[in-house]
Amino acid sequence: MCAVRDVCVIGLGLIGGSVLRAASAAGRTVWGASTAQADVDAATADGFDAGTDVAEALGRAAQRDALVVLAVPLTAVDDVLRIVGMHAPNCLLTDVTSVKGPVAESVARLAPEARYAGGHPMAGTTESGWKAGTATLFEGATWVVCLEEDDSVAHDGTGAASADLTAWREAATLALDAGARVVAIPALAHDATVARTSHLPHLLAAILANAAASGGPIAGALAAGSLRDGIRVAGTRPELVRAMTEGNRAALLPVLDEALGMLGAARGSLASTGGLKVTIDAGHDAHASLAAAQDGPRTPVTLDLNAPDAREGLVSFGLRGGWFTALDGDTLRGEVA
Amino acid sequence: MCAVRDVCVIGLGLIGGSVLRAASAAGRTVWGASTAQADVDAATADGFDAGTDVAEALGRAAQRDALVVLAVPLTAVDDVLRIVGMHAPNCLLTDVTSVKGPVAESVARLAPEARYAGGHPMAGTTESGWKAGTATLFEGATWVVCLEEDDSVAHDGTGAASADLTAWREAATLALDAGARVVAIPALAHDATVARTSHLPHLLAAILANAAASGGPIAGALAAGSLRDGIRVAGTRPELVRAMTEGNRAALLPVLDEALGMLGAARGSLASTGGLKVTIDAGHDAHASLAAAQDGPRTPVTLDLNAPDAREGLVSFGLRGGWFTALDGDTLRGEVA
Repeated sequence: MCAVRDVCVIGLGLIGGSVLRAASAAGRTVWGASTAQADVDAATADGFDAGTDVAEALGRAAQRDALVVLAVPLTAVDDVLRIVGMHAPNCLLTDVTSVKGPVAESVARLAPEARYAGGHPMAGTTESGWKAGTATLFEGATWVVCLEEDDSVAHDGTGAASADLTAWREAATLALDAGARVVAIPALAHDATVARTSHLPHLLAAILANAAASGGPIAGALAAGSLRDGIRVAGTRPELVRAMTEGNRAALLPVLDEALGMLGAARGSLASTGGLKVTIDAGHDAHASLAAAQDGPRTPVTLDLNAPDAREGLVSFGLRGGWFTALDGDTLRGEVA
Repeated sequence: MCAVRDVCVIGLGLIGGSVLRAASAAGRTVWGASTAQADVDAATADGFDAGTDVAEALGRAAQRDALVVLAVPLTAVDDVLRIVGMHAPNCLLTDVTSVKGPVAESVARLAPEARYAGGHPMAGTTESGWKAGTATLFEGATWVVCLEEDDSVAHDGTGAASADLTAWREAATLALDAGARVVAIPALAHDATVARTSHLPHLLAAILANAAASGGPIAGALAAGSLRDGIRVAGTRPELVRAMTEGNRAALLPVLDEALGMLGAARGSLASTGGLKVTIDAGHDAHASLAAAQDGPRTPVTLDLNAPDAREGLVSFGLRGGWFTALDGDTLRGEVA
């Protein structure tokens, strides 16, 4: 275990560039590579070790047993994993894409010997590219580092990559170095949850914007705060929204069905009895419970990474909404609602 | 025409109490009545002329040809209109409820001789009651004052009350006195538009909150900014949301069907081709067009209230998203995108 392990970042856009800066600010030796010349030039101009030769960067990572961070768009992950499989097949590996099940499957297929723990830092802006990044982008943000409840899951023929605890610790340490709070949950739990907490909000915002704009120019004049809030994320770059939602198709479909069912039930109730009490009361209660989970009092917790049940403890804690904010020796410190 | 006409407000909650204060601050002689003793006591303690005798307040309005403002909940409108019909049958009348077609029908039925122009100031807070009100609540807010394109509509057997131009002018002057920007549109256009810009946002927020909370405690931990924005108005008091949505049933149903159609189409596309391009691109474009309508450059416009086509001009201007901010003599000054 080396708390100051080197970090190699592939992809130097907003997220990758911010990871590189944050790791450097935390005292790590860092280097990066990207096929986007503009990002490489900008990173180099800012004094970072960056180039366009991904294979070379990964070879160096293998040589120095560095932590490799894949920070490319979901659609480019497979291509880069093939290079990982060739030039750093046994590396410690994490990524920062917004879906975790599909990436774990790609790792199992294309870099099966990598010591991999998938990651998802939940931070971002509407900007993109190296120049939009900062060393502090992840401060206070939630950063999921995936861990399966049973390590054997990785080897039972499902094709999922092993979420090795060493890899989890390395990826979590990087996240903590960047000032994030770390959540340990299985890949499929991550994907199912972000379908509800991020992808459905984006789709409903798009549909709300469409429905409002169909009202013509008067709709703009009468737009209430409820509309402005409701459509804000419809202003996100469409290619980013498509990447996250289409990439999480398997988990998103049942959530869309739930939303369709609830909206249809509300429509039916309004048409038949004229009432919307069930929908509106339930929404109000749900809002209160989410607010309590986010902003309510939290209890401090510690967890020993060397305990025999550390894996089960980490996942159980994550699924209860707990997160960690520090690692002292082998002791994780965190809090849960 | 009297620019400093007296104002009688029935209902002294957040909106009615704020109208009373704003009219007083603009130099009007004002008095109010409410059956809620707590609001009357609070208004009296603040130095206002307020009582619990609604009939007496309306009788005084009739005597002084005051503008009567109905500021009671939608469910209480009919009861108060019966008292208007008895004690101030010919009064100048407006209201501040969030749906306009149903109230116009009630006025036509219960106070058919009133000179009525329906109003809807689009301002509010999550608080309620006299104490939550302020004289500045409407500054910069949009305040719809309804006007039918053809005055004869009011008498063609549809049961809608006459949107008399004198009544429109009086209600609009009060709104301008309160610092609001005034939009002139027909009642049904108002109801169809707020179904899109306010009521659908509230229902989608409720459904999103339900779907997210179904994810359990981990959903709270992973809540992104998109979720926080999307569910914010689900925290509104359920009785207010029910009053506005259930009260606008006729206009809301087709908008819910539109939203169901779009969400179903997105679901179908994701399931079949895996793509969400149509939904997301259209949402992004709609967001841009709504933002432009709200925040883009606007052209100054004037309109002479004595012009023979003033009524048509007002409505046409309102339907194009234009609003007025001042009345100098008989000249309205406003702007349109």
